[in-house]
Amino acid sequence: MNSVAIVGVGLIGGSFGLALRKAGFSGRIVGVSSAATVEKALKGGVIDAALPLSEAVGAADLVYLAQPIGAILETLDAVDAHVRPGTRITDAGSTKVMICERAAAGIRRGRFIGGHPMAGKESRGVEQADADLFRGRPYVLTSREPQLEGWIERIGARLVLLDAAEHDRLVAFVSHLPQLLSTALAATIGEQPESAAQVAGPAAADLTRLALSPYDIWRDIFSTNAASIDAALAAYIAKLEQLRTQLRSPEMEGAFEKAAAAARGLRR
Amino acid sequence: MNSVAIVGVGLIGGSFGLALRKAGFSGRIVGVSSAATVEKALKGGVIDAALPLSEAVGAADLVYLAQPIGAILETLDAVDAHVRPGTRITDAGSTKVMICERAAAGIRRGRFIGGHPMAGKESRGVEQADADLFRGRPYVLTSREPQLEGWIERIGARLVLLDAAEHDRLVAFVSHLPQLLSTALAATIGEQPESAAQVAGPAAADLTRLALSPYDIWRDIFSTNAASIDAALAAYIAKLEQLRTQLRSPEMEGAFEKAAAAARGLRR
Repeated sequence: MNSVAIVGVGLIGGSFGLALRKAGFSGRIVGVSSAATVEKALKGGVIDAALPLSEAVGAADLVYLAQPIGAILETLDAVDAHVRPGTRITDAGSTKVMICERAAAGIRRGRFIGGHPMAGKESRGVEQADADLFRGRPYVLTSREPQLEGWIERIGARLVLLDAAEHDRLVAFVSHLPQLLSTALAATIGEQPESAAQVAGPAAADLTRLALSPYDIWRDIFSTNAASIDAALAAYIAKLEQLRTQLRSPEMEGAFEKAAAAARGLRR
Repeated sequence: MNSVAIVGVGLIGGSFGLALRKAGFSGRIVGVSSAATVEKALKGGVIDAALPLSEAVGAADLVYLAQPIGAILETLDAVDAHVRPGTRITDAGSTKVMICERAAAGIRRGRFIGGHPMAGKESRGVEQADADLFRGRPYVLTSREPQLEGWIERIGARLVLLDAAEHDRLVAFVSHLPQLLSTALAATIGEQPESAAQVAGPAAADLTRLALSPYDIWRDIFSTNAASIDAALAAYIAKLEQLRTQLRSPEMEGAFEKAAAAARGLRR
């Protein structure tokens, strides 16, 4: 692998570039992004050069799409005409079914491998890019590709192979559901009198932190994973209704123990 | 105020003793607790002496009940016979309606003021007692009492006056609901395949931290505040159902903005 094109040089794309360098990648890293972002990325040593999409991907061995989901879908329609046959194309989008479907329809010369690094930060932008962002974090691929798998290991991430549908089903539970339940909690408390905020302790603060997330990344996630999120919400609401009937029942103790065991499982 | 009796010298009772001392209280602090706890409390300088309930409260100007809720209810039935007329009796229980009702029925010679310091730690026990535990935290009283209010201010807490019913209604939203939704999330994720844990990131970890809480303190909270918790759960489930219908709707953006504003309000 001699040349990588990163399309969308924000937190994730920029971190991937820095992580590749730190892991020993000595080839060329070309960025495709807005003029303002490209300037910061060049200044920060995140990319070696900036080019328009059609030129950047033509010389690349790996094309890394790190835009918002909606923009990835558009790039997948446009990129294939410009790559050399056999070029590997991967992405970092938070949902996988629609992206993999679009790639199956649009990528002919290149070879697409869906990806999702489960990493992030509260602040975004290439200024926040971090060579260690992926270290110790899960990195999902939807199909095998030895060279890409090798770099994922070298940047310190934990490779997880999942097909696109199973990925989307699971992240609905572990990622999209937490966001929605935090938003719902903040909204529910917000409808109470102001004195509710006066008595709120660390539990309320902890569980409403995600509710501070900006909507712009969530719009695409909800619109590309609505069915799985709907199913996860249904399962979660059923669980809440079950706990609701058990408030004064001895069964609640067992429910707490099972939930605590599951919470410990998430920390292993 | 020359003498304080702390009944239940755990994290909260012990911290109240240390906080009084740090705030300049120079009178006697007597503890009522199990032999093992009393030994640690004496060794840690949290109390000056340990006595059985009937003796401890007889000389006290303030009786501070910092036991679990169920034990507070029992103490309220027993303590009045042993106090001098006019002795102030307060508590640190997490729910207030049943405690205040029991006090209204049982406290004749003493004068009861319901209390709830909104403070805590992940670990409990007198070993964790901390003179600064209440600093900057809300401290609810269900009625006014100038001397007690003065000490609450001197230990650095923020006094909040709420009647018992309003307290219980509000903590159902800001404290009991967060616990249940975290428990429900861990339980729901726990019913997914093991690969769910493999792709779980910081959001799932954050939102299931409360699910690790031991059940023993929650049993009493649920049994003494079931109606308010049921109402809070109903409001929360309705909010989730509303978000569920808006997954692909432009209205979701407004819902996110309102929730974010409420979450910021909790941080002021």
